[in-house]
Amino acid sequence: MSAPTGACLVVGVGDGLGSAIARAFAAEGLAVCMTRRPRHLEALEALAQDIRDAGGRAHAYGVDARSEDEMAALFAAIERDVGPLEVVVFNIGANVRFPIRETTARVFHKVWEMACFAGFLAGREAARVMVPRGRGTILFTGATASVRGRDGFAAFAAAKHGLRAVAQSMARELGPEGIHVAHVVIDGGIDGTFIRENRPDAEAALARDEILRPEDVALNYVALHRQPRSAWTHELDLRPWREAF
Amino acid sequence: MSAPTGACLVVGVGDGLGSAIARAFAAEGLAVCMTRRPRHLEALEALAQDIRDAGGRAHAYGVDARSEDEMAALFAAIERDVGPLEVVVFNIGANVRFPIRETTARVFHKVWEMACFAGFLAGREAARVMVPRGRGTILFTGATASVRGRDGFAAFAAAKHGLRAVAQSMARELGPEGIHVAHVVIDGGIDGTFIRENRPDAEAALARDEILRPEDVALNYVALHRQPRSAWTHELDLRPWREAF
Amino acid sequence: MSAPTGACLVVGVGDGLGSAIARAFAAEGLAVCMTRRPRHLEALEALAQDIRDAGGRAHAYGVDARSEDEMAALFAAIERDVGPLEVVVFNIGANVRFPIRETTARVFHKVWEMACFAGFLAGREAARVMVPRGRGTILFTGATASVRGRDGFAAFAAAKHGLRAVAQSMARELGPEGIHVAHVVIDGGIDGTFIRENRPDAEAALARDEILRPEDVALNYVALHRQPRSAWTHELDLRPWREAF
Amino acid sequence: MSAPTGACLVVGVGDGLGSAIARAFAAEGLAVCMTRRPRHLEALEALAQDIRDAGGRAHAYGVDARSEDEMAALFAAIERDVGPLEVVVFNIGANVRFPIRETTARVFHKVWEMACFAGFLAGREAARVMVPRGRGTILFTGATASVRGRDGFAAFAAAKHGLRAVAQSMARELGPEGIHVAHVVIDGGIDGTFIRENRPDAEAALARDEILRPEDVALNYVALHRQPRSAWTHELDLRPWREAF
Repeated sequence: MSAPTGACLVVGVGDGLGSAIARAFAAEGLAVCMTRRPRHLEALEALAQDIRDAGGRAHAYGVDARSEDEMAALFAAIERDVGPLEVVVFNIGANVRFPIRETTARVFHKVWEMACFAGFLAGREAARVMVPRGRGTILFTGATASVRGRDGFAAFAAAKHGLRAVAQSMARELGPEGIHVAHVVIDGGIDGTFIRENRPDAEAALARDEILRPEDVALNYVALHRQPRSAWTHELDLRPWREAF
Repeated sequence: MSAPTGACLVVGVGDGLGSAIARAFAAEGLAVCMTRRPRHLEALEALAQDIRDAGGRAHAYGVDARSEDEMAALFAAIERDVGPLEVVVFNIGANVRFPIRETTARVFHKVWEMACFAGFLAGREAARVMVPRGRGTILFTGATASVRGRDGFAAFAAAKHGLRAVAQSMARELGPEGIHVAHVVIDGGIDGTFIRENRPDAEAALARDEILRPEDVALNYVALHRQPRSAWTHELDLRPWREAF
Repeated sequence: MSAPTGACLVVGVGDGLGSAIARAFAAEGLAVCMTRRPRHLEALEALAQDIRDAGGRAHAYGVDARSEDEMAALFAAIERDVGPLEVVVFNIGANVRFPIRETTARVFHKVWEMACFAGFLAGREAARVMVPRGRGTILFTGATASVRGRDGFAAFAAAKHGLRAVAQSMARELGPEGIHVAHVVIDGGIDGTFIRENRPDAEAALARDEILRPEDVALNYVALHRQPRSAWTHELDLRPWREAF
Repeated sequence: MSAPTGACLVVGVGDGLGSAIARAFAAEGLAVCMTRRPRHLEALEALAQDIRDAGGRAHAYGVDARSEDEMAALFAAIERDVGPLEVVVFNIGANVRFPIRETTARVFHKVWEMACFAGFLAGREAARVMVPRGRGTILFTGATASVRGRDGFAAFAAAKHGLRAVAQSMARELGPEGIHVAHVVIDGGIDGTFIRENRPDAEAALARDEILRPEDVALNYVALHRQPRSAWTHELDLRPWREAF
C-alpha cells in the first residue's frame, strides 16, 4: 500500500464553490478536509460521504473559522490525523449590501471577521505548518469587491480588500520560502442556491454559460496548485464570457 | 459680528500630520475639533490653545474612535455646540510590522479597529450629518500599504486596504449626494517624533526636503476641500521628490 | 523693472481645457507659450492677445507636436526668446471610438502619434532643458481611458495608457533630479464646443456642475506646479460630483 | 481519416517562450503556424520540422508583423491552407532601456510598432476571422512594464501599457461575442539565449527554478485556451517563486 499523500483543507464549504473545490482536490488524490459552521456539520458530513463514495478521501469539521483557538486546533488535528497539509483554501464569503448610513457597526465587524480575519487566521496557520517544510499552496477566494469599492458595499469591500492585502503580503513574504500564495478574483455570480432563488432566468442563463459553474472555477484552484515553482501566478480573475467588466 | 462658519473634525490628532491638518483648516476659518485618545487629552488641549492663540477656533476631545457610542456622541456634540460639520478628516494610523507567523490575532484585530473600523465609523457619522444638507467633505489618510501588500505588513495593509475600500464605496454612493469623499495616499515618512528618533539622518534629510513636511501635506487636504464640485478628486498620492516608488 | 520670470509651455491648446490651463498659468505670472496645429494658428493668436489684454504674457506657436524637429525647435525658441521653462503641459487628446474590427491601422497609428508619441517628445524635450537646472514641472493630461480599456476604445486607450506609462517612467527617473512629473486623469466630459454640440442637455448639466469646467480643472494643474518638493503628487483624478466611476 | 482540427497562430517565435507556446499547442493537436521576421525564417523552419518530427503539425512564416498587408495576407493564407484559427497568440517583445533624454524618437516609435501596433494588427485580424464563428482565443504576452512604468523604460512601458489596453478593450468588446481575450503578465526573466549570456549565475538560478521556464509559462497559455466559457480569466501574472514583486 502506498504512503498517504498530503491533505487539502478547504475553509468555508457552505456553498457550491467550496464543494466543487473540495471535490476537485479529492479527485487529485489529496485527503480533503472541509470546514463549515458547527450547525451545518450534518450537511458537510453528507458531502464528505459523497466524496468518499466516489473514491476520494474526505473529512468534515464543524469549526468557527473566526476563532483563533478552533483554527489552531483544526490545523493540529489535520496534521496529526490526516496528513501534511499541501493545500489550504480560504473560501468564506460574506456578501452584504447596505447604504453607508445604514451599515451598522455590528455588520461591518461581522463581515470583516468572516471574510478577512478568518482568512488571516487560516493563512497564518497554513504558513506555520508549511514554512518549515518549504512547500505548500495557500489560495484565497476573492470577488469583484476585492479590487473595487462600490455604492452600498463599504462593509463587504473593506473585508475583501483586506483579505487581498493579506494574500499579497503573504505572497511576498512566503514565496521565497517555497509557499505559493494566490488570490482568485471571482467576478460574477456563481451557480448555487442563492442565484437560483434570486435570479428568475437562472436556468436559462446557466444553459448559456452566463453564470460561473463551481466546477469550472474549481479547476483553476487545482491548476494554481499544480503550477511549477518556476512560474507561479499570484492573482487571476474569473468571469463568465458575457459578464461586463 | 459675522455668523459662525462651519466646523471641521480631525479624528486622530496624535502626530505631526493631524496637527498640521487641524492648523490648516483653522487657518481657513473653520472651527476645528480634534480627537485623540483620552489619555493624551492634555497634549491635545495644549494644541487647541495654541491654535486659539493664533486666532483660530479649536476644540479638543478625548475619544476612543473605535467606540460607536463615543463617535456618535462626538458628532452630536459638535453639531450642537460648535457648528455644522463641513469637513471630517480621518487620520488614525497604526503602522506595525510583523512576519505573518508572528502576527497575533490581537494585533491583527487592533490594527484593523484603529485604522479601518474607526474610519468607517467616522465616515458613516459624517455621512449621517452631511447627506441631509447635501454638502460636506470627508477625507481619509491612506498610506503605501493602502494600495500594496508587503512582506511583514499583512495586518497594516489589510486595515489600510479596507479603509480605502470604505472611502471608495462612500465616494461612489455619496458623490451624487453632494458629499466629496477623497483618499490621500501618503507614500513616505512624515516628519515627526517617530522619524526623528528612528532615522539618524533625519535633520539632513529634512533639510533636503526628503521627508514629508506635515504642513505641505496638509495643504492638499485643504485644496481637496476647496475643489468646486464640477471637478472633484477622489484619490491623490504624496511623496517627497526623491522617494522611490 | 523686474527680471522676467519663467515660461510655461502648453502643448495642445485647441480646446477649452488647453485655454484654461494657459490662462491659469498666465495669471500666475508665467509667460505662457501655446501650441496648436499651424492651420489653427490664427485662433491661437487671438487667445494670446486676449491673455495679453488681461495683463498676462502669452505667445502662440503653430506646431505639429508629432514632429521631433518642430518640437526641438520650439523648445529652443522658447528658451532663447521667452525664458527658462518652468512648466510644460502636454494636453493633446485624440478621442475616437471604433469597434476593433473597424479600427484601421491608420487610425490606430494617428491616435498614438497625437496622444502618446507627441507627449513623449514634449516630455523628453522638457527633461532636456529642466534636468540641468534641477527644477521644473511636467504635466500630462490623461483620461478614463488612461487606466481602463473599453469596448470600442482600443486605439484611444492604447495611446492614453502609453502616455501614462511615459509619465510614470519619467516621474521615477526625474523626481530625484528635481523635476516634478504628474499625470491628471480626467474622468468625465469637459465643457467645450464638442459637448455643447453633442449633448442636448449640456446647458442644464453645466448649470448643475455635472460637466467639468475647464477653469476648475486648470486650478489643479497650477496646484500641482505649486506643490513644495517635500510632498509631490504623481497622479490625481478629476470628475464632476455626479459622475459614476 | 479524421477531419482537420483548428489552427493556432503564434506571432513572434523568436525566443524560448514563442517556441514553447508553439510546441504546447501542437501537443494539443492544433496545427501551429509560427511567424518570425523573414531573415530568421530558416531557424523557424527548423523548429517547424522539429515539431513535425515529434508528431505535430507546424508551419513557418517569415512575416513583418508590423505590416498590415502582410498580416492580412498571413491570416488569409492560414484560414485557406491550414484551417480555422482557434487560437492566436501575440508574443513579440521589444525590451529596451534608455534614460528619457537619450530615448530617440526612432527607438520610441520602433518599440511601439513591434510591441503594441503589431499586437493590435494581430488581435484585429484574429477578431475578423473569429467573430463570425463566435469562438476563438486571443492571447497577449505582457510584462512587468505592462502594469508599471519605470526609470529608463518609457519606450518599453508605453508600448506594453498600450498592448494591455488593446487586450482589455478587445476582451470587453469580444467576450460577449464568444471570443476569449487574455493578457499574461510575465514578471521575471525567461530562460533563453539572452539570460544565459547576460546572467553569470544563469545555470545555477535555473537549477533552483529562479528563472521562468518557457515550457512552464506555455502551460498557462494552453490552460487559458481550455477554460470553459463559464469561467474565463482575462489577466494573470507569472513569476518565479523567489522573484520580488
